[in-house]
Parts: sequence; structure tokens; C-alpha cells
Amino acid sequence: MFDTLFADVAVAVIAPVGGESSVLRNHFVGVRDGRIVYVGAEAPGEQAREKIDGKNKLLMPGVINAHTHISMAAFKGWGDGHDLHTWLNTYIFPYEDKLDARATAICAQLGLAEAIASGTTAIADMYGFYETVAPAVAESGISANLARGVLAFDPSFDYYASRFFKEAKVLIDDWHGYDDGRIIVDMCIHGEYTSGPWVWKPVAEYALEHGLGIHVHISETRSEHEECIGRHGKSPLRVLADHGVLDSRVLAAHCVWADEQDMELMAEKGVSVAHNPVSNLKLASGVAPVSDMLAHGVNVALGTDGAASNNTLDLWEELKTACLLAKNLGGAPDCFTAPQALALAVTNGARAQGRVDETGRIAVGYDADLILIDFDKPHLTPCQNPLSHLAYAVRGGDVILTLVRGRVLYENGTFPTIDVERAKWETAHYALPLIFNAVTHNA
Amino acid sequence: MFDTLFADVAVAVIAPVGGESSVLRNHFVGVRDGRIVYVGAEAPGEQAREKIDGKNKLLMPGVINAHTHISMAAFKGWGDGHDLHTWLNTYIFPYEDKLDARATAICAQLGLAEAIASGTTAIADMYGFYETVAPAVAESGISANLARGVLAFDPSFDYYASRFFKEAKVLIDDWHGYDDGRIIVDMCIHGEYTSGPWVWKPVAEYALEHGLGIHVHISETRSEHEECIGRHGKSPLRVLADHGVLDSRVLAAHCVWADEQDMELMAEKGVSVAHNPVSNLKLASGVAPVSDMLAHGVNVALGTDGAASNNTLDLWEELKTACLLAKNLGGAPDCFTAPQALALAVTNGARAQGRVDETGRIAVGYDADLILIDFDKPHLTPCQNPLSHLAYAVRGGDVILTLVRGRVLYENGTFPTIDVERAKWETAHYALPLIFNAVTHNA
Repeated sequence: MFDTLFADVAVAVIAPVGGESSVLRNHFVGVRDGRIVYVGAEAPGEQAREKIDGKNKLLMPGVINAHTHISMAAFKGWGDGHDLHTWLNTYIFPYEDKLDARATAICAQLGLAEAIASGTTAIADMYGFYETVAPAVAESGISANLARGVLAFDPSFDYYASRFFKEAKVLIDDWHGYDDGRIIVDMCIHGEYTSGPWVWKPVAEYALEHGLGIHVHISETRSEHEECIGRHGKSPLRVLADHGVLDSRVLAAHCVWADEQDMELMAEKGVSVAHNPVSNLKLASGVAPVSDMLAHGVNVALGTDGAASNNTLDLWEELKTACLLAKNLGGAPDCFTAPQALALAVTNGARAQGRVDETGRIAVGYDADLILIDFDKPHLTPCQNPLSHLAYAVRGGDVILTLVRGRVLYENGTFPTIDVERAKWETAHYALPLIFNAVTHNA
Repeated sequence: MFDTLFADVAVAVIAPVGGESSVLRNHFVGVRDGRIVYVGAEAPGEQAREKIDGKNKLLMPGVINAHTHISMAAFKGWGDGHDLHTWLNTYIFPYEDKLDARATAICAQLGLAEAIASGTTAIADMYGFYETVAPAVAESGISANLARGVLAFDPSFDYYASRFFKEAKVLIDDWHGYDDGRIIVDMCIHGEYTSGPWVWKPVAEYALEHGLGIHVHISETRSEHEECIGRHGKSPLRVLADHGVLDSRVLAAHCVWADEQDMELMAEKGVSVAHNPVSNLKLASGVAPVSDMLAHGVNVALGTDGAASNNTLDLWEELKTACLLAKNLGGAPDCFTAPQALALAVTNGARAQGRVDETGRIAVGYDADLILIDFDKPHLTPCQNPLSHLAYAVRGGDVILTLVRGRVLYENGTFPTIDVERAKWETAHYALPLIFNAVTHNA
């Protein structure tokens, strides 16, 4: 008995970059105990508790958001249209200081709802207040890598005595490996420019000793990249490498200004890049050289960054934008393709999170992290090439079902695991008054 | 008695570029006989045939797609991932040659449905087979400028004797000014590189004499722009100017490679630019210098181009992409703002179509070309700044109601004026077999 059987459905097989992606038409996919247990062109003999008619629908692995700050929902649109310095120092940092654990978890719920509704089955998150946010993530049913941020400018900073490490330690003890690895805790360095060896060394050591990944911002802006070279004579990536940071599984967000030598080092050390094209454009940071990175063998995944600099958590926009920017940067429409963009969003995301052997494929034994897309809408009709539609025409709103490990997290506007109406109410009546000293209405 | 009353709704007032856009909360907007007849903070005494509760919704003028080939729905995704030359010569032109009037109108219906469902109330279209497409446009209820394309490489070409002019003439006679100006016919020059003075002069003369606009592709690719300079010693725009083309209302699509002198000329002659950022990236044509054009006083509007090079007709993607690209090109997040992008999509679009005194404003006397957006979705909650959400977070799928001149063209997934199911069936059973010699299934 299957828990769920997708019958007569188009199945998108997303190959890693360089592989042959394809669509299997009129297939059957059976799910049991959170795993995919049947994939075939023949209707299986086995019964199913729930059978889903796949006519005019496409089943694919969920998309993976490899870099976000999911709790920043309250700041969506706040301070837009100001320069980066004013935005951060006048609109973001002072208001983030007013956050508490309750408000942050409420906002995280809204962010999770948005991500899940648009077909995201896993996120890599960097933020704080995980004492409430981690339970919210666990309850939502999504898979997540969580990393407690750390900023420390003072060379006398004692990492192990700091609240950053203490919070990270609690997070690790309570949540690392939760639900058979659905939640993973990564270590964190906010960035080269917001810390020093007093952070890099202990984080690198601790991660290596405990087999943890490290989530870090790298070379997001030109000034960050060049000022580091000015200070240290080398790029942020190479400075961190000198302190052992790259000896663990590293997830490096942005890398807009990564140079040739950085790319070689990333490939050599197995560093994954989270490319955030929308956020990078919105903050005028530049366009990351994704095709170059891929040519060097770097694992490039996609992220939305926080909703304050995007302003959505809809990974389909990243997928399309990544594709468009790489074509334009490369100067030819064929230099970056739809299947490549899909690989970034799926298999490369899974690898960046350390989950590549468990998710991102529709194959027997893999986690049933699956999304169903309605291909019957006018904007997806007709369909000569489903992989092209996935890259260029599908929007988050076309996802009608999101499963993580076989569990329904979203179905046609409903959220079985998140009380969205309550989260909205709490946002309006608790979080916004706390942060902005005022009740802020919608629309 | 109003035909429709929007009650207690947030109203987005989109100012022209440089003006002050704003959102009026808890307002009332009354519509009668296709026009806006009441806008106020007070509930009007007058009754309404239909009253729409605006709670958590936002009302704004419809967005305007100032450059498209609406009938290209069949080619969406066809030949993606090939270089421009192969794509056009192997995948587009030979298959377009197989089109007939029936297939083109069917595809136009799908394109119109997509545009209308995502809140587009007017399009500027350039294509052919208007003997069937114009009736389909008329029936759909959308406002449209239609322009019969013309390509002619032979200097002995006699424009007035050609089928292009004959078809344009029939289009003008039958449809120009239809339904009190809902349909307008523009003259057309496909491009400088696909014609010569044998086309430019008669088109310019005819347009001037009959008070018609001219829709033209200008400087889409670098090679087009530079080869023209090689041939004529000046840019495509200036070559056309020499032949009187700019003496009418001109809608110039792309202008990616427009130079300083072009911008001055466009401002002087009142030429409108249709900026197609997604198509320009997808075909690796470059990024148009929109901020520069605006600084020169050029009226820049937005277009999707045809669905084959986008691959949607969702103008919200253009709006966001235009904003992101202009910020990144300008090197600062504040150098292009949400209200500017909205002005491009609304008021500048109306001006480009010659409709600026009729539509694009929520004010008494203007056409009731209105769309209602659901701001209650998780990805639009909370909302500090509705104008920011409109530019960065709203997607086509968030539009729940589209009115053109007070008539409902789309409401919550239904199309009162287009038989979408029939259009899909006809596409699968007539258009696709005709074009591709095979029935092509969805998904």
C-alpha cells in the first residue's frame, strides 16, 4: 500500500549540470513512509491511500533555497529605494534590534508559508532566535539547514564564551539531525568583513571536529571584495581558506566578485556557491559569473536571500533570472540553458546542503520531496518543452502541491502545517507594533 | 446607480515618472458606463449594481504591454537554448510560415487570456493575420494598438501595391477607432535592417496623412545597430528620422543600443520606447539604458515581446526586471525606484499607445481599466509599502479581477470573454498539427 500514488503524470528528471534532463510522460510515482518507492511507466498493482491524477500536471523534485534569512518577512519593502548604507543602517539594523524570539518566529512562519507555497522543499537559513525559529521550522515540515549568524569586530572577542557560540551550541544539541536529518545545523561566519581570525579559527575547528557545514557570505559587493584584498592581500575566500574554514562543507552565499583563483579554490575544496541573482541586482551588487564557476566545476545553487532584498522567497524568479543573466553575460542565448538552471535549483541545492544522496531526484529510495505543477493554465499552454516552461514560464503560484518526505505541506492554497491566519494576526498585532511601534495594516 | 463600486479598497495612484505616486487607503471607486465616475474616501450615497469588498485588496490601473506579438503562443519554448540565428531560421521563421488565419487567432486567444489574467488591460501588438486576430482581440475586450508587420528587402518593392499595405489598409478601414477607440491601428516598419526607404517613406507619409502611429523595432541588438551605422553612417533611429518616420507618434521597441544622440532625438520627437528587459536578456541582446533615456525625457514603456522570447506575457516580470536591471546598471539601489517602474508600466504605456488622456489613472472621467490585486497572500504579508510590493513582490497570478472600460475580462480564474478551453482544444487539435505536423500534448 502506497501512502500516495501520482498516476499518469509527467515526471521531470533533473540531471546534474552537464547531464541529460528529461521529462517522462504518463508515469506513475509511488510514495511510502516518506520515500519514493516506485517510478515507472506501468500502473503499479499496489493500492494507494491517496491517488493523485496527474493529467496536465508535472511532478518534479522540490526546489531548494540555498541562501535565505527566512525570518525577515516583516522587513519586506521596508526602506526600499534607499542606498545600501542608508537602507542597512537606518532601516534594517535598528529595527532588527527590536526583534524578539516571538516576533521572529511569527515572521519565520510567514516566510516558510511563502517558500512552501511556491514549491520550496528545503532552505539554508542564516539568522538568529532559533530557540523559537527552529521549532517553527520543524513544525512546518520543511527541510532546513540552520546557521546562527555571528558578527564580531573586536580582536579580543572570545568566540567560545560568546552568546553566538552558546546559541549555536544549543541549536546543535537540540536540533542537529532532528527528524532523521530533516534539520541540519551548520556553523556560521557572517562574512570576512564582519569578523576576524578570532571567529574564523574557532568556527573552522568546531565545524571540522563535529562534522558540520559552514554557511558564510562571500564577496557580495565589489567594495567588500576589494577592501579585503587591501587589508589581507587576498580575497575573502582565500583569507578564510588560510584559517581552515574551507576544510568543512562550505556554503558561500553570493560570490559575485569571485575571481579565477577563487573559483579554482572553490572547486578544489568542494565549496558550494549560493547564487542570489535578484538580491544582487536589487542591491546593485553585480552579476555573479555563474557560467565561469560551473566551467571550473564549482557547485552553484540558488538562493533568494532575505525577503527584504528581493522581495519574495519565490525561487522560480531566481531560476529564471539566473538563466537570463547568464545568457546576457555570456553574450549568446545558448550559453546557459533551462536544464542547467533547473540543476542549480534542485541537485546543486541538495549538494550545497549536504543532502544530495537523499533528495533532488525522483528515483526509488530518495526522499519524497516533491512538487506538483498545474500545466493547464493559459500561460503554460501549449507546451512544446516542459523543461523550458519550468525555467521561463512557471511561477511560484503554479505549484499546487508541496510534499516533504511524503507529507503534504501545501495544497491548493491550504497549509496543513502552518496556521497562516494566526501568523498574519500575530504579525499585525504583535510583531509589527514591537518592531515599528505601530500597527501596520496590509494594502 | 454605479455599475460597479469598489468599497473600502486601497487605491494605487501611479504618477508619471518624477511625480509622487501614493496609495489611498480605504477609498471608494465607482464605475458607470465604462468610466470612473467616483473616487473618494467617503462611501458614496449612490447604489451599485455590483459592490466589491476591497478589504486587503488593492485597486490600480491595468498594466500596459507596449510591445508584443500576442499570437506567438504556439512557439513558447520552441527552440529555446539555441543561438539567435539558429533559433530564428530553424525554429521560428519556417514554422511561422505554416501559420494560417485560424491557427493564429487561436494562439492569439491563448495569449490574450494570459495577458488579461495577469492584469494587462492594453497591448501594442505587431504581427499578421489580423483578419482573424483583430476580431479575437475585439471579442476579448482588451484595448489594443494593432500593427501589420512589413519586411521588404528588395529596393524595387512597391509598398502600396504590396499585400502588407493591402492588409494594413483593410485593418485600418475595418478596425481603426473601433469601439470608441478601444482598438487603434498603427502603421508598421518591422525594422531598419529588414526594409529600406521603399518602405520607410510611404509608411511615414501614410501615417502622417492619416494621423496614425508607427510601431517599429529599433536597435535591438548591437550588430543591428552597428551594421546600420556601417551602411548609412548613422543609427537606425536617425536613418528613419531622415525619411520622416518620426513625424508621427512612434513606438520604438527595444532601443537597447540607443546612443546619446538617439535619446535626444527621441525626446525631441516624442518617440516612445518599449523596453523589453526579459526578452533582451533571454536573447542576450543587452540591457537598455532606461535611466539615461528617462533623464533625457524619453517616454519609456514596458513590453514582454512575443512569448517565444520571454516566455510569458506577464508584465509584472518586466516591471521587476526593469527595476532590478536599472539599479544594477546604475550601480546603486536607489537609482531606480518602484514608483518609476510602475509609471513605465502604466502612464508611460498609455502615452506610448496614444491613450494617456483616457487611461492609466484612477480619476473621474478616465476609462475604468482597472485591476484588483489580492494582498492577503503570504508573500504579500505584511505590507509596509504597497508600491514596493507592486514592483518587487506581486506576480501576475495575484491579480483577481481585470476590467477594461468597466467590463469584466477576468475574475478568479474565469474568462467571461474568451473560451479558453476551446482555444486549448483548437490549439492541440488544429494549430499545433498544422504548424508542427503533430499533435503536441501538454506537460
